[in-house]
Amino acid sequence: MTEVHIIGSGETKFGEMWDRSLRELAVEAGLKAVEDAGIYSRDIGILYGSSSLAGTLNLQNDIGSLLADFSGIASNGIPAVRIESSSSSGAAAVREAYLAIRSGEYDVAMVGGVEKMTDIYGSEILDIVGTTLDREWETFFGGTPAAMAAISARKYMHDFKVGKEAMSMISVNDHANASKNPNAHYRNKITLEAAMKSTPVADPLNLMDCSPISDGAAALILASEKFARSVGKDGVRIKSSAIAQDYLALHSRDSIYTLNSTILAGKTAFEKAGLKHSDVSFVELHDSYSIYGLMELEDLGFCKKGKASELVMDDIGLTSSLPVNPSGGLKAKGNPMGATGVGQFVEGYLQIRGKAGERQVKNASTGLLHSMSGTGSTSVVHILGGA
Amino acid sequence: MTEVHIIGSGETKFGEMWDRSLRELAVEAGLKAVEDAGIYSRDIGILYGSSSLAGTLNLQNDIGSLLADFSGIASNGIPAVRIESSSSSGAAAVREAYLAIRSGEYDVAMVGGVEKMTDIYGSEILDIVGTTLDREWETFFGGTPAAMAAISARKYMHDFKVGKEAMSMISVNDHANASKNPNAHYRNKITLEAAMKSTPVADPLNLMDCSPISDGAAALILASEKFARSVGKDGVRIKSSAIAQDYLALHSRDSIYTLNSTILAGKTAFEKAGLKHSDVSFVELHDSYSIYGLMELEDLGFCKKGKASELVMDDIGLTSSLPVNPSGGLKAKGNPMGATGVGQFVEGYLQIRGKAGERQVKNASTGLLHSMSGTGSTSVVHILGGA
Repeated sequence: MTEVHIIGSGETKFGEMWDRSLRELAVEAGLKAVEDAGIYSRDIGILYGSSSLAGTLNLQNDIGSLLADFSGIASNGIPAVRIESSSSSGAAAVREAYLAIRSGEYDVAMVGGVEKMTDIYGSEILDIVGTTLDREWETFFGGTPAAMAAISARKYMHDFKVGKEAMSMISVNDHANASKNPNAHYRNKITLEAAMKSTPVADPLNLMDCSPISDGAAALILASEKFARSVGKDGVRIKSSAIAQDYLALHSRDSIYTLNSTILAGKTAFEKAGLKHSDVSFVELHDSYSIYGLMELEDLGFCKKGKASELVMDDIGLTSSLPVNPSGGLKAKGNPMGATGVGQFVEGYLQIRGKAGERQVKNASTGLLHSMSGTGSTSVVHILGGA
Repeated sequence: MTEVHIIGSGETKFGEMWDRSLRELAVEAGLKAVEDAGIYSRDIGILYGSSSLAGTLNLQNDIGSLLADFSGIASNGIPAVRIESSSSSGAAAVREAYLAIRSGEYDVAMVGGVEKMTDIYGSEILDIVGTTLDREWETFFGGTPAAMAAISARKYMHDFKVGKEAMSMISVNDHANASKNPNAHYRNKITLEAAMKSTPVADPLNLMDCSPISDGAAALILASEKFARSVGKDGVRIKSSAIAQDYLALHSRDSIYTLNSTILAGKTAFEKAGLKHSDVSFVELHDSYSIYGLMELEDLGFCKKGKASELVMDDIGLTSSLPVNPSGGLKAKGNPMGATGVGQFVEGYLQIRGKAGERQVKNASTGLLHSMSGTGSTSVVHILGGA
């Protein structure tokens, strides 16, 4: 079974880009990735396109075909498939590309994640983002992703006697890191006080606890070890890839603040990579809502359940022992859903090669990327490392 | 690299099922497949859920999580991912499952395809089915799948001096076979005269040239050779799997009646399987519009370009040398998009085991399954055979 290497990445700016269409964003990221890899597009064996909401928001399905066409590879017959797994679509697409290469069928796979969420055909953005929850049992009765996260947050705060500061600190850290990321949606730093006093969204969550509605695209080129070596790009590899599942609806879960899918995927990822938590140089968390940042640190095993607040209030900055979200995370780098998970790989690829500029984590040798769908029904965990 | 076997299948009736929800249909098919395979659901390593329009029609995305939850495997943490590739979603999902098993990561994979197209939340069904075309260059200007097929049909008829009879015969044959399929949407036989005189839809195509809007679900259990042998179900295997691409919009193609993606995927599938056309006992074609049935027979290499009418007018029935669509095809078995491609595998699995009842093809040893997205941007070809 071949190892799988990342040999190129590309990304657009994340943000509100009213003058850019879905396909324009995707093509920009894709071409950057091909150029970065230094390959020809005809070297690509298959494209995995990831978008969660294009069919609902942009009334454009078959995103695989769209991306293959407009990135110029369809003319060579190079196939494309769309992966949709809510906000973990991007990470799930990378995993499909990883399996495709491991199967021996392809030497090079492209992953392109994109979402165009502002200035779109569809309306009622909350209802549309709610299509990733259980429509018949959650969305239909008024449940929104923010409301679901708020329910988890309220019970978490009560059971573990945790104040709001720890959640706010997740966002403060995200904004601090995003201020050093030219592609981030929000590059302004925020103070803890400002984060805590922001406009309420779904109590106890306020505006600074919620990731934004973003446009953006990210792309990766993955390759077999043999191909990566042949082009001298065997520097960053996927040391392990894991995915696990929980119930779709929050009310079905064993605990509304415990992510069973994350526990399982995280455990598997560490086992497969043969690594321990202290080996990890940085983590990218799926903090679509700040409370998830705390839950994920715990459920990935970086601290005991209910104790993430101590870790976070201590230090999770770029120079800490566990830098969290050097990219700026979902809160500040942004959350263009189909691109979000792919964007975490772009960050991991830059960090491990020491190319992350101002936000470079010192001696970044091993990165853990965590992505999840909706309120945590699917979790996808990858560990990246040097060759 | 392990061989991949089909060890179980399940299917709902296809049709207008106003009293059944998307999840009910999916679960029925899934449980039938698990029961047919004689395995426990915990034996499943991963689920590939396929639906093209659920996000747009039913406002339910993350279909993977939904199916994993309601089929009872999420409680074991068994992961799920949704594959979307327009009307080839089901076949593309089978291919992802095939690659996942070939990668060595999983021994058993489930594929569940579903679409709930009637009695849905969304309205404007034509516009929604049109989300699988190029929205900005086709759908936005009034293009519909039927209109696109009609354009191809008109030029095909002109250039090859072919009358409408051959197209109608595709539908007549579909209805004849579907009359013997208890799960088919339409079980009525139709005469050539009735097919030719039906209500116009997009000239030269009439109602009898167009596959219906169907509800339905289909599921498969795939397994590695080792697992299949261990449960004594190593009778039907995927001899080859191929996928290829063309431009998304019809106007970009080299020829509007030549399916380059089908030519390429078909050629690859035959090469990989080491088989020739005369080895094929039956074919399942993606005849969402009858004209495509003719184009596909040609582009898959069963006759020369422009000559499918001769083949079709001669005989494509169950006792002919090349039985076409023993299931009833998309026209009469039905076309619940995400389930359609999976349903072709259900038919292939039944035929090769000699379990297809009244519509059994004699000595069915090798079946070719062809599925495509929209007007042919992606084509997926599989060849099934005995062990």
